[in-house]
Amino acid sequence: MNFKSYLSEKRGVIENALATCMLKSQGELARHIESMNYSLEAGGKRVRPILCLAAVEALGETIEPYLPICCALECIHTYSLIHDDLPAMDDDNLRRGKPTNHMIYGEAGAILAGDGLLTYAFELLSKPELSSVISDANRLQIIQIIARAIGPLGMVGGQALDIDAEKQKVSFETLQMIHRCKTGALITASVQTGAMLARASTEQFLSLTEYGNKIGLAFQIVDDLLNVVGTTEDLGKTAGSDATRNKATYPAFLGVEKTRNMAEDTVEAAKIALKNFDDKADPLRNLADYIYNRTH
Amino acid sequence: MNFKSYLSEKRGVIENALATCMLKSQGELARHIESMNYSLEAGGKRVRPILCLAAVEALGETIEPYLPICCALECIHTYSLIHDDLPAMDDDNLRRGKPTNHMIYGEAGAILAGDGLLTYAFELLSKPELSSVISDANRLQIIQIIARAIGPLGMVGGQALDIDAEKQKVSFETLQMIHRCKTGALITASVQTGAMLARASTEQFLSLTEYGNKIGLAFQIVDDLLNVVGTTEDLGKTAGSDATRNKATYPAFLGVEKTRNMAEDTVEAAKIALKNFDDKADPLRNLADYIYNRTH
Repeated sequence: MNFKSYLSEKRGVIENALATCMLKSQGELARHIESMNYSLEAGGKRVRPILCLAAVEALGETIEPYLPICCALECIHTYSLIHDDLPAMDDDNLRRGKPTNHMIYGEAGAILAGDGLLTYAFELLSKPELSSVISDANRLQIIQIIARAIGPLGMVGGQALDIDAEKQKVSFETLQMIHRCKTGALITASVQTGAMLARASTEQFLSLTEYGNKIGLAFQIVDDLLNVVGTTEDLGKTAGSDATRNKATYPAFLGVEKTRNMAEDTVEAAKIALKNFDDKADPLRNLADYIYNRTH
Repeated sequence: MNFKSYLSEKRGVIENALATCMLKSQGELARHIESMNYSLEAGGKRVRPILCLAAVEALGETIEPYLPICCALECIHTYSLIHDDLPAMDDDNLRRGKPTNHMIYGEAGAILAGDGLLTYAFELLSKPELSSVISDANRLQIIQIIARAIGPLGMVGGQALDIDAEKQKVSFETLQMIHRCKTGALITASVQTGAMLARASTEQFLSLTEYGNKIGLAFQIVDDLLNVVGTTEDLGKTAGSDATRNKATYPAFLGVEKTRNMAEDTVEAAKIALKNFDDKADPLRNLADYIYNRTH
Protein backbone atom coordinates (compact mmCIF):
# COMPACT_ATOMS: atom_id res chain seq x y z
CA MET A 1 0.00 0.00 0.00
CA ASN A 2 1.04 3.59 -0.56
CA PHE A 3 0.92 4.69 3.04
CA LYS A 4 1.66 8.34 2.35
CA SER A 5 -1.42 8.71 0.20
CA TYR A 6 -3.43 6.64 2.70
CA LEU A 7 -2.50 9.08 5.45
CA SER A 8 -3.27 12.15 3.38
CA GLU A 9 -6.62 10.68 2.25
CA LYS A 10 -7.65 9.83 5.82
CA ARG A 11 -6.46 13.17 7.12
CA GLY A 12 -8.81 14.68 4.55
CA VAL A 13 -11.68 12.52 5.81
CA ILE A 14 -11.07 13.68 9.38
CA GLU A 15 -10.70 17.31 8.41
CA ASN A 16 -13.94 17.26 6.45
CA ALA A 17 -15.65 15.70 9.44
CA LEU A 18 -14.23 18.39 11.72
CA ALA A 19 -15.56 21.06 9.36
CA THR A 20 -19.01 19.47 9.68
CA CYS A 21 -18.96 18.70 13.40
CA MET A 22 -17.44 21.82 14.86
CA LEU A 23 -19.34 25.00 15.79
CA LYS A 24 -19.29 27.85 13.29
CA SER A 25 -17.89 31.13 14.56
CA GLN A 26 -20.78 33.62 14.75
CA GLY A 27 -22.73 35.90 17.06
CA GLU A 28 -21.58 36.99 20.49
CA LEU A 29 -19.50 33.85 20.97
CA ALA A 30 -17.60 34.27 17.69
CA ARG A 31 -14.21 34.83 19.25
CA HIS A 32 -14.47 31.94 21.70
CA ILE A 33 -15.48 29.54 18.94
CA GLU A 34 -12.75 30.95 16.70
CA SER A 35 -10.21 30.28 19.47
CA MET A 36 -11.18 26.59 19.55
CA ASN A 37 -11.17 26.24 15.78
CA TYR A 38 -7.83 28.07 15.49
CA SER A 39 -5.98 25.27 17.26
CA LEU A 40 -8.06 22.49 15.70
CA GLU A 41 -7.25 23.84 12.24
CA ALA A 42 -3.56 24.45 12.97
CA GLY A 43 -2.62 21.39 10.92
CA GLY A 44 -2.17 18.42 13.23
CA LYS A 45 -1.36 14.97 11.90
CA ARG A 46 -4.74 13.66 13.14
CA VAL A 47 -3.01 10.54 14.48
CA ARG A 48 -5.63 9.74 17.13
CA PRO A 49 -8.75 9.87 14.94
CA ILE A 50 -6.85 8.03 12.20
CA LEU A 51 -5.93 5.31 14.71
CA CYS A 52 -9.62 4.98 15.59
CA LEU A 53 -10.54 4.86 11.91
CA ALA A 54 -7.83 2.31 11.10
CA ALA A 55 -8.93 0.07 13.98
CA VAL A 56 -12.52 0.19 12.70
CA GLU A 57 -11.35 -0.65 9.18
CA ALA A 58 -9.01 -3.40 10.45
CA LEU A 59 -12.16 -5.14 11.69
CA GLY A 60 -13.90 -4.75 8.33
CA GLU A 61 -16.21 -1.85 9.18
CA THR A 62 -16.39 1.62 7.65
CA ILE A 63 -15.79 4.76 9.68
CA GLU A 64 -18.34 7.12 8.09
CA PRO A 65 -21.18 6.68 10.60
CA TYR A 66 -18.78 7.21 13.49
CA LEU A 67 -16.95 10.34 12.37
CA PRO A 68 -18.25 12.57 15.21
CA ILE A 69 -16.44 10.22 17.58
CA CYS A 70 -13.18 10.64 15.65
CA CYS A 71 -13.69 14.40 15.92
CA ALA A 72 -14.16 14.10 19.67
CA LEU A 73 -10.76 12.40 19.94
CA GLU A 74 -9.14 15.23 18.00
CA CYS A 75 -10.90 17.85 20.17
CA ILE A 76 -9.49 16.17 23.26
CA HIS A 77 -5.98 16.00 21.85
CA THR A 78 -6.14 19.66 20.81
CA TYR A 79 -7.39 20.76 24.24
CA SER A 80 -4.45 18.96 25.85
CA LEU A 81 -1.98 20.74 23.58
CA ILE A 82 -3.51 24.17 24.27
CA HIS A 83 -3.31 23.68 28.04
CA ASP A 84 0.19 22.11 27.87
CA ASP A 85 1.49 25.13 25.96
CA LEU A 86 0.18 27.68 28.50
CA PRO A 87 2.68 30.00 30.21
CA ALA A 88 1.94 28.28 33.55
CA MET A 89 2.76 24.88 31.98
CA ASP A 90 5.37 24.35 29.25
CA ASP A 91 5.22 28.01 28.15
CA ASP A 92 5.58 27.29 24.43
CA ASN A 93 5.10 30.05 21.86
CA LEU A 94 5.10 27.83 18.81
CA ARG A 95 3.12 24.70 17.97
CA ARG A 96 3.05 23.13 14.53
CA GLY A 97 4.95 26.17 13.31
CA LYS A 98 2.20 28.58 14.35
CA PRO A 99 1.75 30.82 17.39
CA THR A 100 0.23 28.83 20.25
CA ASN A 101 -3.35 29.55 21.27
CA HIS A 102 -2.51 31.90 24.15
CA MET A 103 -0.23 33.98 21.90
CA ILE A 104 -3.34 34.85 19.88
CA TYR A 105 -6.22 34.68 22.37
CA GLY A 106 -4.44 35.42 25.64
CA GLU A 107 -4.12 33.12 28.61
CA ALA A 108 -7.77 33.31 29.67
CA GLY A 109 -8.90 32.75 26.09
CA ALA A 110 -6.63 29.72 25.72
CA ILE A 111 -7.69 28.14 29.01
CA LEU A 112 -11.32 28.51 27.90
CA ALA A 113 -10.59 27.26 24.37
CA GLY A 114 -9.21 24.09 25.97
CA ASP A 115 -12.13 23.79 28.37
CA GLY A 116 -14.53 24.31 25.48
CA LEU A 117 -12.90 21.63 23.31
CA LEU A 118 -12.80 19.09 26.14
CA THR A 119 -16.46 19.65 26.95
CA TYR A 120 -17.50 19.69 23.29
CA ALA A 121 -15.83 16.29 22.86
CA PHE A 122 -18.35 14.83 25.30
CA GLU A 123 -21.16 16.64 23.52
CA LEU A 124 -20.06 14.92 20.29
CA LEU A 125 -19.71 11.55 22.03
CA SER A 126 -23.27 11.79 23.37
CA LYS A 127 -24.92 13.07 20.16
CA PRO A 128 -28.44 11.61 19.86
CA GLU A 129 -27.97 10.84 16.13
CA LEU A 130 -25.32 8.24 16.91
CA SER A 131 -27.90 5.98 18.57
CA SER A 132 -28.92 4.73 15.12
CA VAL A 133 -25.41 3.37 14.44
CA ILE A 134 -24.04 2.26 17.85
CA SER A 135 -25.83 0.61 20.71
CA ASP A 136 -26.26 2.91 23.68
CA ALA A 137 -24.46 0.37 25.88
CA ASN A 138 -21.42 0.38 23.58
CA ARG A 139 -21.44 4.15 23.49
CA LEU A 140 -21.44 4.49 27.26
CA GLN A 141 -18.50 2.08 27.37
CA ILE A 142 -16.65 4.24 24.84
CA ILE A 143 -17.34 7.37 26.88
CA GLN A 144 -16.06 5.56 29.98
CA ILE A 145 -12.91 4.36 28.20
CA ILE A 146 -12.13 7.85 26.93
CA ALA A 147 -12.97 9.66 30.18
CA ARG A 148 -10.78 7.32 32.20
CA ALA A 149 -7.92 7.58 29.72
CA ILE A 150 -7.83 11.37 29.83
CA GLY A 151 -8.72 11.91 33.51
CA PRO A 152 -6.81 12.27 36.78
CA LEU A 153 -5.31 8.77 36.50
CA GLY A 154 -4.66 9.23 32.79
CA MET A 155 -3.72 12.17 30.59
CA VAL A 156 -4.38 14.98 33.09
CA GLY A 157 -2.55 13.10 35.84
CA GLY A 158 0.36 12.48 33.48
CA GLN A 159 0.64 16.17 32.75
CA ALA A 160 0.55 16.94 36.49
CA LEU A 161 3.41 14.47 37.05
CA ASP A 162 5.30 15.91 34.09
CA ILE A 163 5.09 19.43 35.54
CA ASP A 164 6.30 18.18 38.94
CA ALA A 165 9.09 16.22 37.24
CA GLU A 166 10.65 19.47 36.07
CA LYS A 167 11.16 20.52 39.66
CA GLN A 168 12.88 17.36 40.90
CA LYS A 169 14.86 14.30 39.81
CA VAL A 170 12.51 11.50 38.79
CA SER A 171 13.20 7.79 38.47
CA PHE A 172 13.03 5.94 35.15
CA GLU A 173 9.86 4.24 36.46
CA THR A 174 8.20 7.61 37.05
CA LEU A 175 9.23 8.75 33.57
CA GLN A 176 7.55 5.67 32.11
CA MET A 177 4.42 6.30 34.14
CA ILE A 178 4.32 9.93 32.99
CA HIS A 179 4.46 8.84 29.39
CA ARG A 180 1.95 6.06 29.79
CA CYS A 181 -0.53 8.52 31.29
CA LYS A 182 0.25 11.68 29.36
CA THR A 183 0.55 10.36 25.82
CA GLY A 184 -0.10 6.65 25.87
CA ALA A 185 -3.53 6.63 27.46
CA LEU A 186 -5.33 8.67 24.77
CA ILE A 187 -3.56 6.80 21.96
CA THR A 188 -4.62 3.46 23.43
CA ALA A 189 -8.15 4.76 24.02
CA SER A 190 -8.36 5.89 20.37
CA VAL A 191 -7.57 2.37 19.18
CA GLN A 192 -9.92 0.87 21.78
CA THR A 193 -12.68 3.21 20.64
CA GLY A 194 -12.28 1.93 17.09
CA ALA A 195 -12.37 -1.63 18.41
CA MET A 196 -15.60 -0.94 20.33
CA LEU A 197 -17.22 0.76 17.33
CA ALA A 198 -16.50 -2.27 15.15
CA ARG A 199 -17.73 -4.64 17.87
CA ALA A 200 -14.38 -6.38 18.34
CA SER A 201 -14.29 -9.75 20.10
CA THR A 202 -12.62 -9.75 23.52
CA GLU A 203 -9.50 -11.26 21.98
CA GLN A 204 -9.40 -8.62 19.24
CA PHE A 205 -10.00 -5.87 21.78
CA LEU A 206 -7.08 -7.06 23.91
CA SER A 207 -4.75 -7.34 20.90
CA LEU A 208 -5.67 -3.83 19.77
CA THR A 209 -5.17 -2.55 23.32
CA GLU A 210 -1.68 -4.08 23.38
CA TYR A 211 -0.98 -2.51 19.97
CA GLY A 212 -2.20 0.86 21.31
CA ASN A 213 -0.04 0.63 24.42
CA LYS A 214 3.05 -0.11 22.35
CA ILE A 215 2.60 2.63 19.78
CA GLY A 216 1.71 5.07 22.56
CA LEU A 217 5.03 4.31 24.19
CA ALA A 218 6.90 4.46 20.87
CA PHE A 219 5.26 7.81 20.13
CA GLN A 220 6.59 9.38 23.30
CA ILE A 221 10.06 7.87 22.98
CA VAL A 222 10.32 9.27 19.44
CA ASP A 223 9.00 12.62 20.65
CA ASP A 224 11.80 12.76 23.21
CA LEU A 225 14.34 11.76 20.55
CA LEU A 226 13.14 14.40 18.12
CA ASN A 227 13.45 17.08 20.76
CA VAL A 228 17.16 16.17 20.93
CA VAL A 229 18.01 15.42 17.29
CA GLY A 230 15.28 17.34 15.38
CA THR A 231 15.36 20.93 14.16
CA THR A 232 12.97 23.67 15.21
CA GLU A 233 11.89 23.99 11.59
CA ASP A 234 11.00 20.29 11.25
CA LEU A 235 9.30 20.14 14.63
CA GLY A 236 7.30 23.34 14.35
CA LYS A 237 8.25 23.90 17.98
CA THR A 238 11.45 24.78 19.77
CA ALA A 239 14.06 21.99 19.46
CA GLY A 240 16.26 21.21 22.45
CA SER A 241 13.74 22.71 24.86
CA ASP A 242 13.60 19.53 26.99
CA ALA A 243 17.33 19.61 27.74
CA THR A 244 17.19 23.35 28.47
CA ARG A 245 14.45 22.64 31.01
CA ASN A 246 16.32 19.64 32.42
CA LYS A 247 13.32 17.51 31.62
CA ALA A 248 13.25 13.78 32.35
CA THR A 249 13.32 12.12 28.92
CA TYR A 250 14.31 8.74 27.49
CA PRO A 251 17.49 10.13 25.89
CA ALA A 252 18.42 11.77 29.20
CA PHE A 253 18.23 8.35 30.91
CA LEU A 254 19.42 6.01 28.17
CA GLY A 255 21.33 8.13 25.66
CA VAL A 256 20.27 8.61 22.04
CA GLU A 257 21.40 5.22 20.69
CA LYS A 258 19.69 3.03 23.29
CA THR A 259 16.58 5.17 23.04
CA ARG A 260 16.50 4.63 19.30
CA ASN A 261 16.75 0.85 19.79
CA MET A 262 14.00 0.92 22.38
CA ALA A 263 11.71 2.79 19.99
CA GLU A 264 12.43 0.21 17.29
CA ASP A 265 11.71 -2.74 19.61
CA THR A 266 8.49 -1.12 20.80
CA VAL A 267 7.25 -0.63 17.24
CA GLU A 268 8.03 -4.28 16.50
CA ALA A 269 6.06 -5.35 19.58
CA ALA A 270 3.12 -3.27 18.35
CA LYS A 271 3.15 -5.12 15.04
CA ILE A 272 3.42 -8.50 16.78
CA ALA A 273 0.26 -7.66 18.72
CA LEU A 274 -1.54 -7.60 15.36
CA LYS A 275 -0.34 -11.04 14.28
CA ASN A 276 -3.85 -12.51 14.14
CA PHE A 277 -5.21 -9.68 11.95
CA ASP A 278 -5.31 -9.90 8.15
CA ASP A 279 -4.17 -7.28 5.64
CA LYS A 280 -7.03 -4.95 6.59
CA ALA A 281 -4.77 -4.13 9.56
CA ASP A 282 -1.90 -3.03 7.31
CA PRO A 283 -2.65 0.66 7.91
CA LEU A 284 -2.23 0.02 11.66
CA ARG A 285 1.09 -1.74 10.95
CA ASN A 286 2.18 1.16 8.76
CA LEU A 287 1.09 3.66 11.40
CA ALA A 288 3.47 1.98 13.84
CA ASP A 289 6.35 2.43 11.38
CA TYR A 290 5.22 5.97 10.67
CA ILE A 291 5.42 6.84 14.34
CA TYR A 292 8.98 5.52 14.41
CA ASN A 293 10.06 7.31 11.23
CA ARG A 294 8.37 10.68 11.65
CA THR A 295 10.50 13.81 11.83
CA HIS A 296 7.92 16.03 13.54
CA MET B 1 -40.96 21.98 56.57
CA ASN B 2 -37.78 23.00 58.35
CA PHE B 3 -35.78 23.96 55.32
CA LYS B 4 -32.58 24.70 57.18
CA SER B 5 -32.35 21.16 58.47
CA TYR B 6 -33.43 19.82 55.06
CA LEU B 7 -30.48 21.63 53.46
CA SER B 8 -28.01 20.48 56.03
CA GLU B 9 -29.25 16.88 55.80
CA LYS B 10 -29.02 16.85 52.01
CA ARG B 11 -25.64 18.53 52.07
CA GLY B 12 -24.53 15.63 54.25
CA VAL B 13 -25.90 13.14 51.73
CA ILE B 14 -23.96 14.80 48.92
CA GLU B 15 -20.77 15.08 50.95
CA ASN B 16 -20.90 11.42 51.91
CA ALA B 17 -21.41 10.55 48.26
CA LEU B 18 -18.42 12.70 47.27
CA ALA B 19 -16.28 10.92 49.86
CA THR B 20 -17.28 7.61 48.25
CA CYS B 21 -17.07 8.64 44.59
CA MET B 22 -13.90 10.69 44.52
CA LEU B 23 -10.40 9.33 44.07
CA LYS B 24 -8.30 8.84 47.20
CA SER B 25 -5.02 10.70 47.32
CA GLN B 26 -2.22 8.13 47.09
CA GLY B 27 0.82 7.06 45.11
CA GLU B 28 2.60 9.17 42.53
CA LEU B 29 -0.56 11.13 41.74
CA ALA B 30 -1.25 12.04 45.38
CA ARG B 31 -0.74 15.77 44.95
CA HIS B 32 -2.86 16.05 41.81
CA ILE B 33 -5.74 14.16 43.42
CA GLU B 34 -5.32 16.23 46.58
CA SER B 35 -5.59 19.40 44.48
CA MET B 36 -8.97 18.28 43.13
CA ASN B 37 -10.26 17.22 46.53
CA TYR B 38 -9.04 20.43 48.16
CA SER B 39 -11.51 22.55 46.20
CA LEU B 40 -14.28 19.96 46.33
CA GLU B 41 -13.99 19.85 50.11
CA ALA B 42 -13.72 23.61 50.56
CA GLY B 43 -17.29 23.77 51.80
CA GLY B 44 -19.59 24.67 48.96
CA LYS B 45 -23.35 24.88 49.41
CA ARG B 46 -23.84 21.90 47.04
CA VAL B 47 -26.70 23.78 45.38
CA ARG B 48 -26.45 21.97 42.03
CA PRO B 49 -26.48 18.38 43.30
CA ILE B 50 -29.21 19.31 45.81
CA LEU B 51 -31.29 20.75 42.95
CA CYS B 52 -30.90 17.46 41.10
CA LEU B 53 -31.83 15.53 44.22
CA ALA B 54 -34.83 17.76 44.95
CA ALA B 55 -36.09 17.38 41.37
CA VAL B 56 -35.84 13.59 41.66
CA GLU B 57 -37.71 13.67 44.98
CA ALA B 58 -40.33 16.10 43.64
CA LEU B 59 -41.25 13.34 41.20
CA GLY B 60 -41.53 10.75 43.96
CA GLU B 61 -38.22 8.93 43.41
CA THR B 62 -35.25 8.54 45.76
CA ILE B 63 -31.80 9.86 44.92
CA GLU B 64 -29.62 7.10 46.39
CA PRO B 65 -29.02 5.07 43.23
CA TYR B 66 -28.09 8.20 41.32
CA LEU B 67 -25.62 9.83 43.69
CA PRO B 68 -22.58 9.51 41.38
CA ILE B 69 -24.47 11.77 38.98
CA CYS B 70 -24.98 14.37 41.72
CA CYS B 71 -21.24 14.16 42.40
CA ALA B 72 -20.51 14.76 38.71
CA LEU B 73 -22.51 18.01 38.88
CA GLU B 74 -20.51 19.18 41.88
CA CYS B 75 -17.21 18.25 40.17
CA ILE B 76 -18.22 20.36 37.18
CA HIS B 77 -19.21 23.32 39.34
CA THR B 78 -15.94 23.09 41.30
CA TYR B 79 -13.85 22.91 38.11
CA SER B 80 -15.55 26.08 36.87
CA LEU B 81 -14.74 27.91 40.11
CA ILE B 82 -11.09 26.84 40.04
CA HIS B 83 -10.63 28.06 36.47
CA ASP B 84 -12.63 31.28 37.08
CA ASP B 85 -10.39 32.15 40.02
CA LEU B 86 -7.12 31.76 38.06
CA PRO B 87 -4.81 34.77 37.77
CA ALA B 88 -5.50 34.89 34.02
CA MET B 89 -9.26 35.05 34.72
CA ASP B 90 -10.81 36.76 37.76
CA ASP B 91 -7.58 36.50 39.77
CA ASP B 92 -9.25 35.78 43.11
CA ASN B 93 -7.20 34.74 46.14
CA LEU B 94 -10.13 33.75 48.33
CA ARG B 95 -13.06 31.44 47.72
CA ARG B 96 -15.45 30.33 50.43
CA GLY B 97 -13.10 31.97 52.91
CA LYS B 98 -10.16 29.77 51.91
CA PRO B 99 -7.19 30.32 49.62
CA THR B 100 -8.15 29.55 46.03
CA ASN B 101 -6.73 26.46 44.38
CA HIS B 102 -3.85 28.19 42.58
CA MET B 103 -2.75 29.85 45.83
CA ILE B 104 -2.01 26.36 47.16
CA TYR B 105 -1.16 24.29 44.09
CA GLY B 106 0.16 26.96 41.73
CA GLU B 107 -1.32 27.98 38.40
CA ALA B 108 -0.39 24.80 36.55
CA GLY B 109 -1.71 22.67 39.40
CA ALA B 110 -4.99 24.57 39.47
CA ILE B 111 -5.53 24.38 35.71
CA LEU B 112 -4.98 20.62 35.91
CA ALA B 113 -7.18 20.25 39.02
CA GLY B 114 -9.98 21.84 36.99
CA ASP B 115 -9.28 19.71 33.94
CA GLY B 116 -9.20 16.62 36.15
CA LEU B 117 -12.53 17.42 37.81
CA LEU B 118 -14.26 18.18 34.51
CA THR B 119 -13.03 14.93 32.99
CA TYR B 120 -13.78 12.90 36.11
CA ALA B 121 -17.36 14.18 35.98
CA PHE B 122 -17.81 12.38 32.66
CA GLU B 123 -16.16 9.28 34.10
CA LEU B 124 -18.79 9.33 36.87
CA LEU B 125 -21.61 9.97 34.41
CA SER B 126 -20.58 6.94 32.33
CA LYS B 127 -19.94 4.53 35.24
CA PRO B 128 -20.94 0.99 34.19
CA GLU B 129 -22.69 0.35 37.54
CA LEU B 130 -25.34 2.97 36.75
CA SER B 131 -26.75 0.83 33.94
CA SER B 132 -28.70 -1.18 36.50
CA VAL B 133 -30.63 1.90 37.65
CA ILE B 134 -31.01 4.12 34.55
CA SER B 135 -31.62 3.11 30.97
CA ASP B 136 -28.60 3.68 28.76
CA ALA B 137 -30.71 5.87 26.48
CA ASN B 138 -31.69 8.15 29.38
CA ARG B 139 -28.10 8.31 30.53
CA LEU B 140 -26.82 9.39 27.13
CA GLN B 141 -29.48 12.11 27.11
CA ILE B 142 -28.30 13.28 30.53
CA ILE B 143 -24.68 13.38 29.34
CA GLN B 144 -25.79 15.36 26.29
CA ILE B 145 -27.82 17.82 28.42
CA ILE B 146 -24.90 18.40 30.77
CA ALA B 147 -22.22 18.62 28.06
CA ARG B 148 -24.24 21.17 26.09
CA ALA B 149 -25.00 23.20 29.21
CA ILE B 150 -21.36 23.54 30.19
CA GLY B 151 -19.78 23.76 26.72
CA PRO B 152 -18.84 26.53 24.29
CA LEU B 153 -22.48 27.67 23.93
CA GLY B 154 -23.07 27.28 27.67
CA MET B 155 -20.94 27.74 30.76
CA VAL B 156 -17.52 27.96 29.07
CA GLY B 157 -18.87 30.40 26.47
CA GLY B 158 -20.44 32.48 29.23
CA GLN B 159 -17.13 32.74 31.02
CA ALA B 160 -15.42 33.77 27.75
CA LEU B 161 -18.04 36.52 27.26
CA ASP B 162 -17.66 37.59 30.88
CA ILE B 163 -13.89 37.99 30.49
CA ASP B 164 -14.38 40.04 27.31
CA ALA B 165 -17.06 42.13 29.04
CA GLU B 166 -14.46 43.48 31.45
CA LYS B 167 -12.60 45.05 28.56
CA GLN B 168 -15.54 46.86 26.96
CA LYS B 169 -19.02 48.27 27.60
CA VAL B 170 -21.64 45.57 27.15
CA SER B 171 -25.37 45.91 26.57
CA PHE B 172 -27.97 44.71 29.06
CA GLU B 173 -28.84 41.95 26.56
CA THR B 174 -25.25 40.73 26.55
CA LEU B 175 -25.19 40.79 30.36
CA GLN B 176 -28.28 38.59 30.40
CA MET B 177 -26.74 36.21 27.90
CA ILE B 178 -23.55 35.99 29.96
CA HIS B 179 -25.52 35.05 33.05
CA ARG B 180 -27.76 32.60 31.22
CA CYS B 181 -24.67 30.79 29.90
CA LYS B 182 -22.25 31.16 32.77
CA THR B 183 -24.47 30.39 35.76
CA GLY B 184 -27.92 29.56 34.49
CA ALA B 185 -27.06 26.70 32.14
CA LEU B 186 -25.58 24.34 34.74
CA ILE B 187 -28.31 25.15 37.26
CA THR B 188 -31.00 24.37 34.70
CA ALA B 189 -29.13 21.23 33.62
CA SER B 190 -28.96 20.06 37.25
CA VAL B 191 -32.74 20.28 37.55
CA GLN B 192 -33.21 18.68 34.13
CA THR B 193 -30.89 15.83 35.13
CA GLY B 194 -33.08 15.15 38.15
CA ALA B 195 -36.15 15.23 35.91
CA MET B 196 -34.56 12.71 33.50
CA LEU B 197 -33.49 10.42 36.35
CA ALA B 198 -37.04 10.32 37.70
CA ARG B 199 -38.46 9.77 34.20
CA ALA B 200 -40.44 13.02 34.12
CA SER B 201 -43.24 13.41 31.56
CA THR B 202 -42.60 15.97 28.83
CA GLU B 203 -44.83 18.45 30.63
CA GLN B 204 -43.03 17.92 33.93
CA PHE B 205 -39.66 18.21 32.20
CA LEU B 206 -40.65 21.55 30.65
CA SER B 207 -41.98 22.92 33.96
CA LEU B 208 -38.79 21.92 35.76
CA THR B 209 -36.73 23.47 32.96
CA GLU B 210 -38.64 26.75 33.37
CA TYR B 211 -38.09 26.54 37.14
CA GLY B 212 -34.36 25.94 36.55
CA ASN B 213 -34.08 28.86 34.16
CA LYS B 214 -35.72 31.21 36.65
CA ILE B 215 -33.70 30.21 39.68
CA GLY B 216 -30.52 30.29 37.59
CA LEU B 217 -31.29 33.87 36.70
CA ALA B 218 -32.24 34.73 40.30
CA PHE B 219 -29.01 33.17 41.51
CA GLN B 220 -26.87 35.42 39.37
CA ILE B 221 -28.87 38.56 40.12
CA VAL B 222 -28.48 37.90 43.85
CA ASP B 223 -24.77 37.16 43.34
CA ASP B 224 -24.36 40.58 41.74
CA LEU B 225 -26.35 42.19 44.55
CA LEU B 226 -24.29 40.52 47.25
CA ASN B 227 -21.09 41.73 45.66
CA VAL B 228 -22.42 45.28 46.20
CA VAL B 229 -24.19 44.99 49.55
CA GLY B 230 -22.46 41.96 51.15
CA THR B 231 -19.37 41.91 53.33
CA THR B 232 -16.14 40.10 52.55
CA GLU B 233 -16.62 38.06 55.70
CA ASP B 234 -20.11 36.88 54.74
CA LEU B 235 -19.14 36.21 51.13
CA GLY B 236 -15.87 34.42 51.80
CA LYS B 237 -14.54 36.37 48.83
CA THR B 238 -13.68 40.00 48.24
CA ALA B 239 -16.79 42.24 48.40
CA GLY B 240 -17.07 45.12 45.97
CA SER B 241 -14.67 43.48 43.52
CA ASP B 242 -17.14 43.77 40.63
CA ALA B 243 -17.37 47.55 40.92
CA THR B 244 -13.59 47.83 41.27
CA ARG B 245 -13.24 45.88 38.04
CA ASN B 246 -16.01 47.89 36.34
CA LYS B 247 -17.85 44.67 35.70
CA ALA B 248 -21.22 44.59 33.95
CA THR B 249 -23.70 43.59 36.66
CA TYR B 250 -27.43 43.94 37.30
CA PRO B 251 -26.95 46.65 39.97
CA ALA B 252 -24.65 48.55 37.61
CA PHE B 253 -27.45 48.64 35.01
CA LEU B 254 -30.56 48.88 37.18
CA GLY B 255 -29.45 50.14 40.59
CA VAL B 256 -29.77 48.14 43.79
CA GLU B 257 -33.51 48.63 44.36
CA LYS B 258 -34.71 47.60 40.91
CA THR B 259 -32.31 44.66 40.97
CA ARG B 260 -33.78 43.49 44.25
CA ASN B 261 -37.30 43.67 42.78
CA MET B 262 -36.19 41.76 39.72
CA ALA B 263 -34.73 39.02 41.88
CA GLU B 264 -37.99 38.79 43.82
CA ASP B 265 -40.11 38.58 40.64
CA THR B 266 -37.83 35.91 39.20
CA VAL B 267 -38.09 33.76 42.30
CA GLU B 268 -41.89 34.09 42.15
CA ALA B 269 -41.85 33.01 38.50
CA ALA B 270 -39.79 29.97 39.47
CA LYS B 271 -42.42 28.95 42.01
CA ILE B 272 -45.23 29.52 39.53
CA ALA B 273 -43.51 27.08 37.16
CA LEU B 274 -44.07 24.41 39.82
CA LYS B 275 -47.82 25.06 40.16
CA ASN B 276 -48.79 21.57 38.98
CA PHE B 277 -46.47 19.82 41.45
CA ASP B 278 -47.64 18.63 44.87
CA ASP B 279 -45.92 19.18 48.20
CA LYS B 280 -43.07 16.84 47.27
CA ALA B 281 -41.82 19.87 45.32
CA ASP B 282 -41.72 22.05 48.45
CA PRO B 283 -37.94 21.71 48.76
CA LEU B 284 -37.63 23.13 45.23
CA ARG B 285 -39.93 26.01 46.24
CA ASN B 286 -37.87 26.61 49.35
CA LEU B 287 -34.67 26.45 47.34
CA ALA B 288 -35.97 29.32 45.22
CA ASP B 289 -36.55 31.41 48.36
CA TYR B 290 -33.19 30.32 49.73
CA ILE B 291 -31.45 31.62 46.62
CA TYR B 292 -33.16 34.96 47.10
CA ASN B 293 -32.42 35.20 50.82
CA ARG B 294 -28.87 33.89 50.95
CA THR B 295 -26.11 36.16 52.21
CA HIS B 296 -23.17 34.33 50.63
